[in-house]
Amino acid sequence: MNMYCCGIDIGGTTVKIGLFSLDSSLVNKWEIPTRTEKKGEFILPDIVKSIEKELFAKGFGWGNIAGIGIAVPGPVIENQIVTRCVNLGWEHVDVAAEMQKLTGVSNITVVNDAKAAALGEWWKGGHENCKSAVMITLGTGIGGGVIVNGQIVSGAFGGAGELSHFPLVPDETEPCACGKCGHLQQYASAEGLVHQFYKKMRIDSRSSILSNHKNLSAKDIIDAARGGDSLAKEVFDDAVRKIAQTMAMVTSVIDPELFLIGGGMSKAGDFLIDAIRKEYRRFALFISENTRIEQAVLGNDAGIYGAVKCVMDNISK
Amino acid sequence: MNMYCCGIDIGGTTVKIGLFSLDSSLVNKWEIPTRTEKKGEFILPDIVKSIEKELFAKGFGWGNIAGIGIAVPGPVIENQIVTRCVNLGWEHVDVAAEMQKLTGVSNITVVNDAKAAALGEWWKGGHENCKSAVMITLGTGIGGGVIVNGQIVSGAFGGAGELSHFPLVPDETEPCACGKCGHLQQYASAEGLVHQFYKKMRIDSRSSILSNHKNLSAKDIIDAARGGDSLAKEVFDDAVRKIAQTMAMVTSVIDPELFLIGGGMSKAGDFLIDAIRKEYRRFALFISENTRIEQAVLGNDAGIYGAVKCVMDNISK
Repeated sequence: MNMYCCGIDIGGTTVKIGLFSLDSSLVNKWEIPTRTEKKGEFILPDIVKSIEKELFAKGFGWGNIAGIGIAVPGPVIENQIVTRCVNLGWEHVDVAAEMQKLTGVSNITVVNDAKAAALGEWWKGGHENCKSAVMITLGTGIGGGVIVNGQIVSGAFGGAGELSHFPLVPDETEPCACGKCGHLQQYASAEGLVHQFYKKMRIDSRSSILSNHKNLSAKDIIDAARGGDSLAKEVFDDAVRKIAQTMAMVTSVIDPELFLIGGGMSKAGDFLIDAIRKEYRRFALFISENTRIEQAVLGNDAGIYGAVKCVMDNISK
Repeated sequence: MNMYCCGIDIGGTTVKIGLFSLDSSLVNKWEIPTRTEKKGEFILPDIVKSIEKELFAKGFGWGNIAGIGIAVPGPVIENQIVTRCVNLGWEHVDVAAEMQKLTGVSNITVVNDAKAAALGEWWKGGHENCKSAVMITLGTGIGGGVIVNGQIVSGAFGGAGELSHFPLVPDETEPCACGKCGHLQQYASAEGLVHQFYKKMRIDSRSSILSNHKNLSAKDIIDAARGGDSLAKEVFDDAVRKIAQTMAMVTSVIDPELFLIGGGMSKAGDFLIDAIRKEYRRFALFISENTRIEQAVLGNDAGIYGAVKCVMDNISK
């Protein structure tokens, strides 16, 4: 019997779905829109219908599915339950139980999306020989995934790898979205970078090539920094410094073999990665100054790979 | 045949030795002085002679020893080699190979002493049901040990748990003993607390009950803080804040079930632990505000327990 696994990455606007053979090759991947209305009640049924269509077209059914891995944008309890997922409209949802009811498949694992991305990058990005790795996803917010001994670390309350809220600046008075102050994402996420640039522009008398731009993006600021704009460069440098300082702190905790930098901002490539490498050496433990720091390579596919890896690990246990 | 394991904790002034039965009960423990002269070349032979004396008195020999766990005050490579151990005078020493040569015992594991203490506290301090724990040892310096899935995390370069050099204050200009600046131990170790108090006394016009004391200790400062001395209280509060901030950062990385506070400073008991708990809640991730924070209970014995646990884990594998 032809057996497959599904890797699913549920985002706030699209759901990415991958069908994998049991030797972990990607057979097919596609996307569907995420319908978040009515507290996201259509999301899981939409996914099921979409996979069924794909399976039926091949002459298969759910009996051909050995396991389903699902990545979600929020904390996950016991690899199955989501208590709150703002981007999807979900409150308490037993994702694994609902999917099992809809599909009959019993082997289902649910994982946080940043953790799945980390696992996917580690697994299929060419780093499977590393015993430990930490991925930092610099997107609208900041995600993190921590791998120790080849396993994602979830943490006692699901908080492992939550680098968005890394409490870096104790005397900050401006609150983070979470209500506490001085968190990494306030300075170094795409949104944080834009916010800090506007803030600086208001109090700094220097002009910037971005002074008359409306609706600035993180990319605009990084491009201006690369082009030598001093205002943009200062905001960029501060973000890099805070990312590197956070990474050095991560090193003092678990001393990983590898850091992976992903997310939209990582598209800035060597300009960003080299700057992070340089600052990292300044902050890191002497014995760990040479930790590898690499750009993530799988982009948006990392989540489906990581999700399917989680469920395949269960099968092989 | 009666079989035993040895747990050895080599410190800069004394070596603690424990003889354990294979059901992990402590049969006997004793101490010998650490002879650090001649690059510490007598340390391992002294330990061997001392254990032989104990064994021979019981009518036993090295054939009755199933394994030896050795904790050392420095980074350890591949559970056997020390590259540099300033307190012992050691440079590159293959501790496991030398001990095997001296004793004929092949099952030998070498571990960093702070990591051993963490493992010992977790194992015999009543926390073995916790999957993850982080111990912070507030002594002359600051040690740390990180346990994930019941295993000590060593890290790619042996740097995991190196909280002494946690790069907390990026704009500090005064260097840490390691040469870099702004590290946790500069503020929150026993030595750091004393240093910060003297520094504050020089620039602050307030008088303190400690103003005329010579050779202040961390205990003097903590006692003065407890007694309401405002200068001492400010230095103590700053140390507590920095310890708590570091712990909240550790939580954003691995989100442990439990923090254990050990080392000489932890003898301050609830006055210190309660202050840390309060500040920790202020810094920690919302979902992880209620992480348990407990005082370590094994004191100086934690190291021999942790060392023997490492080697017993090898035997049971």
